[in-house]
Amino acid sequence: MAMAMAILSFFLCLLITTAAADWNILNQRTKSGLKISLKNYCEGWRLNVELHNIQYFQVVPEECVSYIGKYVSSTQYRVDSERTIEECVVYLTKACALKGDGTDAWVFDIDDTLISTVPYYKKNQYGGKKLNLTDLEAWMSKANAPVLAHTLRLFNLLKARGVDIILISARRENIRSATIENLVQVGYHGWTNLILRSAEDEKKGVAKYKADARRRLVNEGYYIWGNVGDQYSSIVGSPNGRRTFKLPNPMYYVS
Amino acid sequence: MAMAMAILSFFLCLLITTAAADWNILNQRTKSGLKISLKNYCEGWRLNVELHNIQYFQVVPEECVSYIGKYVSSTQYRVDSERTIEECVVYLTKACALKGDGTDAWVFDIDDTLISTVPYYKKNQYGGKKLNLTDLEAWMSKANAPVLAHTLRLFNLLKARGVDIILISARRENIRSATIENLVQVGYHGWTNLILRSAEDEKKGVAKYKADARRRLVNEGYYIWGNVGDQYSSIVGSPNGRRTFKLPNPMYYVS
Repeated sequence: MAMAMAILSFFLCLLITTAAADWNILNQRTKSGLKISLKNYCEGWRLNVELHNIQYFQVVPEECVSYIGKYVSSTQYRVDSERTIEECVVYLTKACALKGDGTDAWVFDIDDTLISTVPYYKKNQYGGKKLNLTDLEAWMSKANAPVLAHTLRLFNLLKARGVDIILISARRENIRSATIENLVQVGYHGWTNLILRSAEDEKKGVAKYKADARRRLVNEGYYIWGNVGDQYSSIVGSPNGRRTFKLPNPMYYVS
Repeated sequence: MAMAMAILSFFLCLLITTAAADWNILNQRTKSGLKISLKNYCEGWRLNVELHNIQYFQVVPEECVSYIGKYVSSTQYRVDSERTIEECVVYLTKACALKGDGTDAWVFDIDDTLISTVPYYKKNQYGGKKLNLTDLEAWMSKANAPVLAHTLRLFNLLKARGVDIILISARRENIRSATIENLVQVGYHGWTNLILRSAEDEKKGVAKYKADARRRLVNEGYYIWGNVGDQYSSIVGSPNGRRTFKLPNPMYYVS
């Protein structure tokens, strides 16, 4: 009987908590007085992150953790990402007169561009918890990040067309071998250069480090046709490539 | 009886058509074979427009006209837009050490930034119909475009802080007086300069025309703290301002 009471009161408590949460949600308003749902709020947050209007955020707002978790686990996230890569393919096949002389290059970021960190963030409140680099690198060292299959198809198409593929990542040199192992295991091979951050590079911001790396490529004679990343720090700053493509990622911000 | 039969067959036909449409929708797949709904498809299209991965589109895809119409008429579109402007306010009040010497400037686009063209596009398939400039200018000449209230608040905040407001629009000189009338009627007044396109400007693309106009402002001694528009052609190209903000707009693309 006591057990039954306990179970009953647990569910009653759950009911009240949920109702309270709903009440809050239904009474949420924007600064202009517009009545909105929590989903409206979080969707507005996410879109403005993608538009680069919201910058330098350190964590996903606590109230949007569940929404962001749902999004990055959804068909919609896959559709959005596949469409980004589809646009790369259209651009590559219709608008790039490749030179074919060994100077054609394409730049990729790694995390959430070639392979997915969603399994890591799933265990870390989908970005709702402040980044712990030691913890993240421990996860990366396991070399278990799953493939983003749409990007692998673009990667292989570029290889088939003779374009040199350069990977520029904010990952540090200390996890180079795990990074290579992970990439090869999920199907990536045949890239030309894998650029990771040295101790020296860590002193500058990621955007500067990546732009400097691209500058070296251009100085070596490369022509960067395309540049794909999930962070603005992968695609801003000169030279950034003839065209840049931004994959969706509402879980974290790298500046 | 014949009338009843006609009505019945009309509704039967409607039923079949709808079912067929649903069937198509439910069986839609991305290139990777992922089964998606029409909403998934259109949402992916819209996000990639906002990410600037999809460029130079002339019309909204026919199958997404209804979805885009719903979006720009929705609370979500207002929430998304209000959040963009809210980020401008945060930036202005927390991160701008205004000089106060008459050189502080802020740049705005007009259409779908200060005032809304949604009523026009509502009558033109929400961007699903190719642009007819004569028709659009006839509508603009009526000076009936409604205010975007969130932007008006930012506009007034900038005025109160003594920032010079410069409007740079792709509208042509021939609708200058209607443009002023419309802006004043909905509450905008006290801007410093309204820059519209001359016949000479029309020869260059909009992005180049706007960047040239900003270059002249900088040469005159202005410091552009912020630059807000709903099109990438308003915010790309040097000088673009210390920070740029992109409002959502999936109805059309100005290059």
